[in-house]
Amino acid sequence: MVLTMDSQTKTENCLGWAARDPSGVLSPYKFSRRPLRSDDVSIKITHCGICYADVIWSRNILGDSMYPLVPGHEIAGIVKEVGSNVQRFKVGDPVGVGTYVNSCRDCEYCNDGVEVHCVKGTVFTFNGIDEDGTVTKGGYSSYIVVPERYCFRIPNNYPLASAAPLLCAGITVYTPMIRHNMNQPGKSLGVIGLGGLGHMAVKFGKAFGLCVTVFSTSISKKEEALNLLGADKFVVSSDQEQMKGLSKSLDFIVDTASGDHPFDPYMSLLKIAGVYVLVGFPSEVKFSPASLNLGMRTVSGSITGGTKVTQEMIEFCSAHKIYPQIEVIPIQYANEALERLIKRDVKYRFVIDIENTLK
Amino acid sequence: MVLTMDSQTKTENCLGWAARDPSGVLSPYKFSRRPLRSDDVSIKITHCGICYADVIWSRNILGDSMYPLVPGHEIAGIVKEVGSNVQRFKVGDPVGVGTYVNSCRDCEYCNDGVEVHCVKGTVFTFNGIDEDGTVTKGGYSSYIVVPERYCFRIPNNYPLASAAPLLCAGITVYTPMIRHNMNQPGKSLGVIGLGGLGHMAVKFGKAFGLCVTVFSTSISKKEEALNLLGADKFVVSSDQEQMKGLSKSLDFIVDTASGDHPFDPYMSLLKIAGVYVLVGFPSEVKFSPASLNLGMRTVSGSITGGTKVTQEMIEFCSAHKIYPQIEVIPIQYANEALERLIKRDVKYRFVIDIENTLK
Repeated sequence: MVLTMDSQTKTENCLGWAARDPSGVLSPYKFSRRPLRSDDVSIKITHCGICYADVIWSRNILGDSMYPLVPGHEIAGIVKEVGSNVQRFKVGDPVGVGTYVNSCRDCEYCNDGVEVHCVKGTVFTFNGIDEDGTVTKGGYSSYIVVPERYCFRIPNNYPLASAAPLLCAGITVYTPMIRHNMNQPGKSLGVIGLGGLGHMAVKFGKAFGLCVTVFSTSISKKEEALNLLGADKFVVSSDQEQMKGLSKSLDFIVDTASGDHPFDPYMSLLKIAGVYVLVGFPSEVKFSPASLNLGMRTVSGSITGGTKVTQEMIEFCSAHKIYPQIEVIPIQYANEALERLIKRDVKYRFVIDIENTLK
Repeated sequence: MVLTMDSQTKTENCLGWAARDPSGVLSPYKFSRRPLRSDDVSIKITHCGICYADVIWSRNILGDSMYPLVPGHEIAGIVKEVGSNVQRFKVGDPVGVGTYVNSCRDCEYCNDGVEVHCVKGTVFTFNGIDEDGTVTKGGYSSYIVVPERYCFRIPNNYPLASAAPLLCAGITVYTPMIRHNMNQPGKSLGVIGLGGLGHMAVKFGKAFGLCVTVFSTSISKKEEALNLLGADKFVVSSDQEQMKGLSKSLDFIVDTASGDHPFDPYMSLLKIAGVYVLVGFPSEVKFSPASLNLGMRTVSGSITGGTKVTQEMIEFCSAHKIYPQIEVIPIQYANEALERLIKRDVKYRFVIDIENTLK
């Protein structure tokens, strides 16, 4: 018994903030990370973005939360140790970790670099069950141990605080935009919702040379959408005149809205054969078959992205100087930040300064 | 007055069957077709398929029917006269006409041979308003005058009775199957619904080298699906065990069901990045965003097809000896046939023998 307790004490070497129950209230929590394996990278976390997923699982919205629960899957930091077989990273490298930290590495999807769709189920970065049976713990913590396959190189000149939101918000919109060939200059893109995901869709759209129209329920976001984010047009979605004027004018729509909203009015804005990409999770998707069939339109879904496209996106952001708009906060502000996120009171992504505030 | 009446009598040279009111009951009706223009082909109609659209408009289901209404947009026949500028057809040629008989011929879609999506609106074969302001009248009639652009060559060895259903049922499923690359041997296809459209999807699927699974609400169609149409598997969609066994197994689904049905159970059968094509018109399309997003799946719609792909489909059917299963009926049976169509009591398409029975 004494030996076991000693051993536990020794290995409780990671400091995090965890929710203990469905209240979702986060507070300091000490726990152990596994010893480094040969293909693992150990990362000193400097920053972690706050994603709506952190709300969902810290509050047990889906009923599958395992407490204590350490959220966070937009992780950036510095390599502090590498296993004996690690090839791509060395101590001191800036790295990122996204929404998953393991997969079977043997199925057709893993082999194609789209591990997020692993046949045996990808292991999520927090509240997932890893191959050794342990429950994964996320980036609201001082360090993390991750197989190098699920770590991403961050260019030296790219700020780590800005890199963090790329790992979920960024890749979630980048993946379907690339998959559906939205990187064709001169084409037109509609972006529904202007939160963490939506504002990245605007930035990618502009970098791809698209004409970008932002749809929002509130006029209050107009100036920033146009002047800060660089959108070409801003439409209040309740303005039927404006909506009508855009009928059949868009090649693509990226719908990042998480709240319920009608689909038909937006689908009618797509050209023939236009593509509507859904990345949010409203309670249901509902539309008239005419909205789809008569315009030969497509509705397609997506979640985050594989390791291959994630690394490509990071390089793309670095090369094109695309940075998320962030509000950097101390870990002590995390509970308030989650409340503000629920109220959509954030421009446009909270990033926790782990390095300087988690002590 | 006398002159006018004379003139009318002279030009009422086409015999058809028309609905006179929303009862939809069809009866003989004499009317005039326009004189041949330089780019027109005049076609002696030999056969006309019966499509569910004939029910919809003869009964004014959508509230836009103009009576007397002559239905029919699956037309096959023989050229009996050509205008002075007609290039592709000569008297005696077997030809087909589908769901539209005019378009602007000047927009990007017309220029691409997808006239069905004409910016100014395609002119439907019946109950449409043509450029001269007249209301179009369909194929339940002795002859029709159509610009050659909207006429299709039918190979000499292809029976005209069999050709008729290709012009709507056939092209409606062929177009999205080609567009979404379903012609890849070895891939798997699910077909929902086994009516006029569904049975053609099975035939095309087999010709493309796909493994075809038919989903039906009734076991009664099993033997024909497997032995007559050549499907590989048959699943009663209410059998949850069978459905579960097919989870994430299909590359494609073509949904031809016109009745309301749930979408999530079928979407769960698609592999990652699988494509679900809707060609029916249920009252709504409704599914969970998880069904779409988690599997990176696509739902896409379609209606009939452009002139280019229609001609290609006819050649394909001829080359691969693909023939719709038809029940040839006299025009005098048309009202009963429409009733049977509503009850889905047809294997698998009625075709009216215009040539021998419309007198």
